[in-house]
Amino acid sequence: MPETRDPASAYRAAGVDLEAADRFKEKLKRIVGATPADGVIGGLGGFGGCFTLAGVGEADPVLVASADGVGTKVLVARAAGRHDTLGHDLVNHCVDDLLAQGARPLFFLDYIASGRLDEEVALALVEGFAAGCRENGIPLLGGETAEMPDVYEADGYDLAGFIVGVAPRPRLDRLGVAIGPGDVVLGLPSSGLHTNGYTLARKVILGGERSITDPVPWGAGTWADALLAVHRSYLAAVLPLLDDPALHGCAHVTGGGFAGNLARPLRPGVGVRLRRDAWAQPPLFEFLEREGNIARDEMVRVFNMGIGFCLFVDRREAGRIARACGDAGAAAVEIGEAVTGEGVTWD
Amino acid sequence: MPETRDPASAYRAAGVDLEAADRFKEKLKRIVGATPADGVIGGLGGFGGCFTLAGVGEADPVLVASADGVGTKVLVARAAGRHDTLGHDLVNHCVDDLLAQGARPLFFLDYIASGRLDEEVALALVEGFAAGCRENGIPLLGGETAEMPDVYEADGYDLAGFIVGVAPRPRLDRLGVAIGPGDVVLGLPSSGLHTNGYTLARKVILGGERSITDPVPWGAGTWADALLAVHRSYLAAVLPLLDDPALHGCAHVTGGGFAGNLARPLRPGVGVRLRRDAWAQPPLFEFLEREGNIARDEMVRVFNMGIGFCLFVDRREAGRIARACGDAGAAAVEIGEAVTGEGVTWD
Repeated sequence: MPETRDPASAYRAAGVDLEAADRFKEKLKRIVGATPADGVIGGLGGFGGCFTLAGVGEADPVLVASADGVGTKVLVARAAGRHDTLGHDLVNHCVDDLLAQGARPLFFLDYIASGRLDEEVALALVEGFAAGCRENGIPLLGGETAEMPDVYEADGYDLAGFIVGVAPRPRLDRLGVAIGPGDVVLGLPSSGLHTNGYTLARKVILGGERSITDPVPWGAGTWADALLAVHRSYLAAVLPLLDDPALHGCAHVTGGGFAGNLARPLRPGVGVRLRRDAWAQPPLFEFLEREGNIARDEMVRVFNMGIGFCLFVDRREAGRIARACGDAGAAAVEIGEAVTGEGVTWD
Repeated sequence: MPETRDPASAYRAAGVDLEAADRFKEKLKRIVGATPADGVIGGLGGFGGCFTLAGVGEADPVLVASADGVGTKVLVARAAGRHDTLGHDLVNHCVDDLLAQGARPLFFLDYIASGRLDEEVALALVEGFAAGCRENGIPLLGGETAEMPDVYEADGYDLAGFIVGVAPRPRLDRLGVAIGPGDVVLGLPSSGLHTNGYTLARKVILGGERSITDPVPWGAGTWADALLAVHRSYLAAVLPLLDDPALHGCAHVTGGGFAGNLARPLRPGVGVRLRRDAWAQPPLFEFLEREGNIARDEMVRVFNMGIGFCLFVDRREAGRIARACGDAGAAAVEIGEAVTGEGVTWD
């Protein structure tokens, strides 16, 4: 028999506090209530979040869904004591996955699991999700917050995010397949590591004497600032282009880097040739390569190298598309081209 | 600088093996490919899973979405070395959440995070998700498998699941609101603890000398069998009833027990009165109450007590609805009634 001084609090003694969870839920509802509500039916408190398709208005609509996490970026946030950016990372990551597929986002759900429900930390995590939802104009439709002692350390946690978007079927059928040899690859700048390569980056940067509160050597804030920079959403730049006939396909440069992602939209017989010198590698990536003694081949398989999203575009229209991206705040760079062949190669 | 004997394997030395991840993905595709494919467009490998709404055919369709985890049931599975049931739990849990809201499931996505990618364990986890998807006739549309050293123990992991379903708007507007005083509450049997109360149950059952491989005292398999019994899906019993005018509302008895869940569909001014002696508490719950010295009030807030799903039905039609559930394999028991009042009370 376990030692429980008060039988009425056996569950709390076992590590789960349902009253604290109820109080948390009330605060959570206020945060969630401050995300866009277009399409949402009812509030939190149901067994599932409800979103009407009445206003979606796509012809032959296809739902596109994606699940993701932020990897060991959670450990950087814990080390920095800054918990309100990871949720934003995750929403933007998921939005970019949808864009790469040709879809616009409809709604988002989150999963938060921790060893002990620290209300302040959990609310900061949810604030991050809400901030991401606001940036992308979608509701935080629901989620789950789990207290799991013995799975996570007391102050440990993990996050997952789920997104649903919609695309008209003809667009889905066109993007990717339309990419052919000669198409230009435009790269859009990333804001940092986004959500990939953190296990390696942490070992290189934080494995020794360096503190996360130290300034970065290139003089732009601390390591915490550099490593926690929010994964960029390309919604404003890419959404207006999805039905542009000059856009032939997209790739989100995430886990697996360039090789793992730029080949994903390509049909067999089409490859990509990228130019290493096409863009200036941001100082964070330079630092990781040099300090970590990491081969260039591995760098481009693990990190985004400063390019978070790629557009495959008709060569004759590349200038126009690049200007449209620039006008939307994403300075596009021509980084290579589609070729006859397979996979991703480098000049 | 981290110690990396081979710069080309810096990421592997840091704890992440991309080649192993690629091999895993191929095996994963085969498992996912064995789940129902109705509505699925394209395969895995895109940035998001695609599901056409062309065949959905609801009038005024509303998407209903839910995210969930299995809580510390993961620790029971690890202790038992049996990893192929948790995913099934999670799909069924999510399906029941949708049913409680009045929706039928369309597709499921999973999130698996572990300290080290043990291929055998991870594939067993995915097999569980696939089994759940097959039982409920939906595709495993996508997911994320993350290797997160330093967040999870080497052999530690967590799972989350995400489901999307659909319901016609008129049904959503009717269920719950239709519940009024005098309605009968029918309870459908659970298969065990489902996915709630495991932190307390583990402390009571496995906190002392007892081994998970010991037989249970009531002579029906081992503690592992009892504790890992798969969360029951009520799809077959409840789906055919969702547009039956005699069905006024539903509740899934999950985290928060009876008090936390039976009140969820009720409009203000309507409460529920349940009868403690209406059904026989299964021996697992008897054991937990006695051995854990847990007050009855707490038992019914933490555990499902043998009733996993409740239907609020028109009193005059209760017999017919109960027989329909029984014919679908779920022996319904009248456990109480809706009353004028608030919240859940017990006779």
